[in-house]
Amino acid sequence: MPFTAVRFTDRFWAPRQRVNRERTIPHIDRQNTVTGRIDAFRRDWNPSPEVTRRDGRWNGTVVMFWDSDVAKWIEAAAYSLATTPDPALDARLDAIIALIAERQAPDGYMNTWFLTVDPEMRWANLRDWHELYDAGHLIEAAVAHYEATGKRSLLDVMCRYADYIGATFGRGPGQKRGYCGHPEIELALVRLARATGEQRYHDLARYFVDERGQQPHYFDQEAIARGQPPAQFWARSYEYNQAHLPVREQTEAVGHSVRAVYLYSAMADFAASEGDQQLRDACATIWRHLTTKRMYVMGGIGTSAKNEGFTSDYDLPNESAYAETCAAIGLVFWAQRMLRLGLDRRYTDILELALYNAVLSGVSHDGESFFYDNPLASAGTHHRSEWFACPCCPPNLARIIASLGDYVYAQNEHEAVVHLYAQGSGQFRFGEQDVTLHQQTDYPWDGRVTVRVETGAPASFALRLRVPAWSGAPELLLNGSPVNAPAEGGYLQIDREWIDGDEVVLALPMPVERLYARPDVTPDLGLVALRRGPLIYCVEQADQSVPVERIVLPASAELASEFRADVLDGLVVVTGTALAPTGAGWADDELYRTAPPELRPCPITAIPYYAWDNRAPGKMRVWLPTTGS
Amino acid sequence: MPFTAVRFTDRFWAPRQRVNRERTIPHIDRQNTVTGRIDAFRRDWNPSPEVTRRDGRWNGTVVMFWDSDVAKWIEAAAYSLATTPDPALDARLDAIIALIAERQAPDGYMNTWFLTVDPEMRWANLRDWHELYDAGHLIEAAVAHYEATGKRSLLDVMCRYADYIGATFGRGPGQKRGYCGHPEIELALVRLARATGEQRYHDLARYFVDERGQQPHYFDQEAIARGQPPAQFWARSYEYNQAHLPVREQTEAVGHSVRAVYLYSAMADFAASEGDQQLRDACATIWRHLTTKRMYVMGGIGTSAKNEGFTSDYDLPNESAYAETCAAIGLVFWAQRMLRLGLDRRYTDILELALYNAVLSGVSHDGESFFYDNPLASAGTHHRSEWFACPCCPPNLARIIASLGDYVYAQNEHEAVVHLYAQGSGQFRFGEQDVTLHQQTDYPWDGRVTVRVETGAPASFALRLRVPAWSGAPELLLNGSPVNAPAEGGYLQIDREWIDGDEVVLALPMPVERLYARPDVTPDLGLVALRRGPLIYCVEQADQSVPVERIVLPASAELASEFRADVLDGLVVVTGTALAPTGAGWADDELYRTAPPELRPCPITAIPYYAWDNRAPGKMRVWLPTTGS
Repeated sequence: MPFTAVRFTDRFWAPRQRVNRERTIPHIDRQNTVTGRIDAFRRDWNPSPEVTRRDGRWNGTVVMFWDSDVAKWIEAAAYSLATTPDPALDARLDAIIALIAERQAPDGYMNTWFLTVDPEMRWANLRDWHELYDAGHLIEAAVAHYEATGKRSLLDVMCRYADYIGATFGRGPGQKRGYCGHPEIELALVRLARATGEQRYHDLARYFVDERGQQPHYFDQEAIARGQPPAQFWARSYEYNQAHLPVREQTEAVGHSVRAVYLYSAMADFAASEGDQQLRDACATIWRHLTTKRMYVMGGIGTSAKNEGFTSDYDLPNESAYAETCAAIGLVFWAQRMLRLGLDRRYTDILELALYNAVLSGVSHDGESFFYDNPLASAGTHHRSEWFACPCCPPNLARIIASLGDYVYAQNEHEAVVHLYAQGSGQFRFGEQDVTLHQQTDYPWDGRVTVRVETGAPASFALRLRVPAWSGAPELLLNGSPVNAPAEGGYLQIDREWIDGDEVVLALPMPVERLYARPDVTPDLGLVALRRGPLIYCVEQADQSVPVERIVLPASAELASEFRADVLDGLVVVTGTALAPTGAGWADDELYRTAPPELRPCPITAIPYYAWDNRAPGKMRVWLPTTGS
Repeated sequence: MPFTAVRFTDRFWAPRQRVNRERTIPHIDRQNTVTGRIDAFRRDWNPSPEVTRRDGRWNGTVVMFWDSDVAKWIEAAAYSLATTPDPALDARLDAIIALIAERQAPDGYMNTWFLTVDPEMRWANLRDWHELYDAGHLIEAAVAHYEATGKRSLLDVMCRYADYIGATFGRGPGQKRGYCGHPEIELALVRLARATGEQRYHDLARYFVDERGQQPHYFDQEAIARGQPPAQFWARSYEYNQAHLPVREQTEAVGHSVRAVYLYSAMADFAASEGDQQLRDACATIWRHLTTKRMYVMGGIGTSAKNEGFTSDYDLPNESAYAETCAAIGLVFWAQRMLRLGLDRRYTDILELALYNAVLSGVSHDGESFFYDNPLASAGTHHRSEWFACPCCPPNLARIIASLGDYVYAQNEHEAVVHLYAQGSGQFRFGEQDVTLHQQTDYPWDGRVTVRVETGAPASFALRLRVPAWSGAPELLLNGSPVNAPAEGGYLQIDREWIDGDEVVLALPMPVERLYARPDVTPDLGLVALRRGPLIYCVEQADQSVPVERIVLPASAELASEFRADVLDGLVVVTGTALAPTGAGWADDELYRTAPPELRPCPITAIPYYAWDNRAPGKMRVWLPTTGS
């Protein structure tokens, strides 16, 4: 049973998975249906001209990505079935999969747009048209569906499609030397290879990774073939597609941020699975660059709406932050794969940071509206939407929340790894012995974690427990007694023969901390952010007695935390006394004067960043002015 | 001899008037010439289709305003002739005036666009097409030319035009009940009435002021006549034109900021000349609103580029400030007219503030490039231009600098008023006695002013000397001895019989002061600005050892001032030791951490705001973060 099937029983993730299952997944299915995305898979799909060609390119481009929207929903629904059986959902999946199977062309090809609307343009613009990206998401859906249900219905369809893609692309005679402008197929094929045991999918994925950015440049050649001068590429540089250089020569996170992290995920897959040192180095170098020069404090990445991606080092404006939800999700994907190269909490800490903050902010408390971009400050006008012209984020959220267990636990031959802390049980197998690890914790509200071992017979394995960098020195108890455990890469290791009922307690200190950005980050100069455990906090107008923009948090202000059951079904708030300039003492006609405004103490309440914009619409800030030191 | 003819002999204004005369006025004449603006006045003007109709409306609209560009230049050149005879310039003026005279239609009409390009649309769109605005500027030019040279050549042409306008517009049978979308004709006609002694121009101006905003709305009616639904007005509201209400019912500064202050100037003219209490109240109310809720600290007005004007109370962003040079100039015009309602330094202080800062910043040190908008912060990309598609600001700067004396001195029957301090002599006349007041001062670098009386015979009059609100308690000496003088409206009054050689010394303390904005001004929260005397200061990158955006100026930092002869031909800088966060102590891969950046002392040098962007291009800020209290 894969870890994606872990069912959580805590008061943090369990309600989120329930909302995801009961609200978000049905909501997306409804949206996919009413917008025509399901009908697009019918053999008799007859899209209206408005849908396919309205004002030329833009709507057409969106419709070109429709397959991926449905595919990500199938993937999310499949994960949900694995944790919570649901015959109606199972049947719904079967029905949609039947449409896809029926629709597949005899040669294996499967793309609603190019089968119906633009058949003559099949594979004509890999750079812009997301054809292989669509295929990748369908393949991920097939793998998830197969693993969750054991059914091969979609898997077989997608194996045929993957085989057709394998015949079409490659370095052999008559094959196209292409690859997709939006990476996705690469990591999908790796998953397909793993699920089916078929090396050819692995090889095809490796071809796509290796071919990227080679000269002569495929995107140039296909543009010329379309009669379009390559220099007229609308995004100007293939950095946008991370195709400016062969992947092993890339050193910086550039371009469209979702494309970037999907590609880096596949690079990490190969660095892990083949011991490819060049890819490993490239991944490590780009990771370091991204996370130390271009990442927001809450794990969001991609500064600019213009390219939906990266700009320049330390360019991290708050109110205009793009920080697309999908990019944070992709960062989680990538971090998970980096961990397969060797346990190192640097990756897990950022996986956790992105997941609990920049990802989770993407979905509303009720599960039916979504942020596409996740700014770190708002004047009060930024709100979640029920749907988007390009609705990539909602189903991406649905699939990551539904498969959370896969980020919590991992195992290899001799190790049971606990990456994240969340109450729920993971099933491991060492040799012939099934072992269940039961986590009991109120994380992220409290740092105390109890791991109880359930095993039919004594089992030898190393329990690896991550100590987040933010936690300081934790306390560790084994069966009630303090124990010293060696740490490597930030993971404690308790290697022993475990018997049923063994219990490990890890108590992670979880103080409220102030964070400062390096001075190169101009927008954060003089500002402070608040963190408690894995959560980044923000102040939202709904909780304050003064306008958010007036709050100054002195370095000396004491901060406390408190569980508030009345706020959004319960969360830990951070409270303290800040200062705010008051207009008292200013004459009505004083606009400027030589005496500064009086600063008056004001109580402030900060909530986790992920939870903002779920109550009265209002202003929000992550970074607050501070004084003193 | 009007005060416009005062010639300054100091080291502040004298060089600026010289540069204006030797560089700016010739530069604008060249630009007017090469862009075809002079040719447009020729009877055989045959504009190319690109000039008059290129891409429809926009370029056409600009060309519609061409007459005003030349008119403002004529006005500036005329003032210059008054202070500094120049036969070549005199002849150049004669030549251009001859073109205008020749071009005038037999009925008196005179507008190059509507005479040549669009004759059938004469008076068809007063709201948008600036026809009466153009007329107003030509009338102002005529008055200035007449007063400077005694020649009636342009005055007579413009009287004929004004008479034609008077026949066309009004409440009589067959007359149009219109007025201009861009106020200007009103204040121009007041000047014409004063110069010619003709009441009918005064009455026509009063008609335009009074008719504005009346119902049924003229702009609606003329739009309907053109076949355009009034609701489709591109600016959406007649607030843009200050025509949303009759002027006596207006209480707030709204819409396009230049239009606003030109209108308010005319309103003040009538409030003064006719003792119209409703107009007086409206002026006072709008003045108070504008200067206490919508004015930048350096006297700039008009927040937004979108409407070139006002937005909402306290909406005063710094980097995106529009603060058009022409609007600040218009604020000076208005303030001058408010002073005619009674001496009150509230008006003069803002006149001075705008003049020395938001106006003067509009022109480069070399006199040949200009700011249209005057932001209070720059990331380093805001620079002056040699010319603009709509070059309203350069000749407006030229005319105000050339006529400076008119803002320094004023007189009435019994009073000699010194509004501003600048070394140069004003000619007064009390009864039959000519009196010259000689100012000797290094203002604005130093607050000590000596006023020496030159008179052929003893003369009784009240000398009124303004004590700016920023100056605190000044010292006053009469012939070397301390003297108490009553103050009213911030003007000291020494009423006596003056004899030749009498000398008054006014010593205004001129410390460096910190200014704070009221907390409603969100962009300035936690920030401080520096003022010394009438000058607002800024920090420009060229003078700093750390990036401008890192500078924090503690409340405790001592600030000094120093004359620096090496900077832009000499100016007083403000110096002090600020703090700046340093990247020292940050590991290369530390992006966020729990320890704040170390603040290190750094020397800073601030220069007067008007002087920025005259050296190495770079970042600039007026408002600096501050700490402590």
